[in-house]
Amino acid sequence: MDWRVVLVRPRNPLNIGAVARAMANFGLHQMVAVQPYEAAWQETRSAVGAEEIVLNARAVAEMAAALESVSLVVGTTAGTRRQMTRPLLPLPGLGAWIAAGPRHRQAALLFGSEKTGLSNEEMSFCHALVRIPTLEQTPSMNLGQAVAVCCYELSRQGLILGRASGPAKPLPRAAHASAPAPAPSLEHLFERAARVLDRVGYLQPKSRAATLRKLRRMMLDHHLSQHDAKILGGMLAQIEWKLKNP
Amino acid sequence: MDWRVVLVRPRNPLNIGAVARAMANFGLHQMVAVQPYEAAWQETRSAVGAEEIVLNARAVAEMAAALESVSLVVGTTAGTRRQMTRPLLPLPGLGAWIAAGPRHRQAALLFGSEKTGLSNEEMSFCHALVRIPTLEQTPSMNLGQAVAVCCYELSRQGLILGRASGPAKPLPRAAHASAPAPAPSLEHLFERAARVLDRVGYLQPKSRAATLRKLRRMMLDHHLSQHDAKILGGMLAQIEWKLKNP
Repeated sequence: MDWRVVLVRPRNPLNIGAVARAMANFGLHQMVAVQPYEAAWQETRSAVGAEEIVLNARAVAEMAAALESVSLVVGTTAGTRRQMTRPLLPLPGLGAWIAAGPRHRQAALLFGSEKTGLSNEEMSFCHALVRIPTLEQTPSMNLGQAVAVCCYELSRQGLILGRASGPAKPLPRAAHASAPAPAPSLEHLFERAARVLDRVGYLQPKSRAATLRKLRRMMLDHHLSQHDAKILGGMLAQIEWKLKNP
Repeated sequence: MDWRVVLVRPRNPLNIGAVARAMANFGLHQMVAVQPYEAAWQETRSAVGAEEIVLNARAVAEMAAALESVSLVVGTTAGTRRQMTRPLLPLPGLGAWIAAGPRHRQAALLFGSEKTGLSNEEMSFCHALVRIPTLEQTPSMNLGQAVAVCCYELSRQGLILGRASGPAKPLPRAAHASAPAPAPSLEHLFERAARVLDRVGYLQPKSRAATLRKLRRMMLDHHLSQHDAKILGGMLAQIEWKLKNP
């Protein structure tokens, strides 16, 4: 499904720029502004380094014009209004709700103005409203951040055209992944550690056996890799050498 | 689990304010800045209507000071670096990864500076890195938006103290029988090990930094418990003493 972001009466050029940035991050392209504040709109579009999304964005006078060729309209709300005239979903539940309905090619996600959100009139264009589950006492999000969270969530839920399979790039493997150390190298490492601890006087005659058992247990519990054992062995060898040759 | 947001060298007061706003939306309270740009930091804190989070935020000079009482450190990355030296998780997988490990009371989420992200040195403090699954061609997110998405996701996954119950925690594994070592004791242990390795000539000038990063990584990968850290610290102290008093 292709998603259009519709900003209703946006006032702040920084916010409009931030919306474009988040859209680019998650592969959304279509931005439409309904009755944007003229100065803010001009400033956003003439900003150095403005996103292509902003340069291609349309400004329209009426909500209906923003929804051309759209068959699914989802509004966003902080949920603070007393009466909701449309079904209200928590954002994480949007995917399940969409999956339960008919298939759409083009959807729109509506964001109200920074000050007032969507009006009842504007909400009446929406098939459903979503709410980002913020704390009750601080429900209202910054516009750019709300758009970022929604784009992330559309992407995570596989709701964006051509992105259903998730991130294209396989994650690089952590550098430390290595085979577990074989028992004999662990034993070798353990013996070297015991020699060093003996030489520095850490091991007391009375508790020597118990302390060494603890050390061995710790080594086993941590499932040292071959690579770990090699590094630790090298360190201990150098310490042992220095103790013999102060 | 309680989460602290750690901003490393933030440069832009608007971004710092936006970070605080997103934290408030999702019930996070603790913000620490490591080496913030002084002017930006002052401007943020003196802004009219600054969030309480910003007014209570600490600025510190060293990463270690930002991680006081923290036992789980998660860094964020756009994943564009060729080599990742820490396990890299997609953000939606963070909850499962956390559920598989020991329980933590205090965690930190690290965000690098707007220009460069986290350095290799800064990443070396992290148990794991998370990546917000953005498009490959536009991977880098605005700081305030990245924080908003992460806070939303911590909340959605039930990872924030007192918010949603989250998945049932499995029993801790044997190696984690005792509470995880807090970041400062690990740092203390690491520094002691570095002093010993310096004294015995294990560290070579050219490779010193890389070798120490490897050592730190190994310590993090094994999720040392408080008990482990105490035993190893005692051994190293005795070795250090003997090297000084042969």
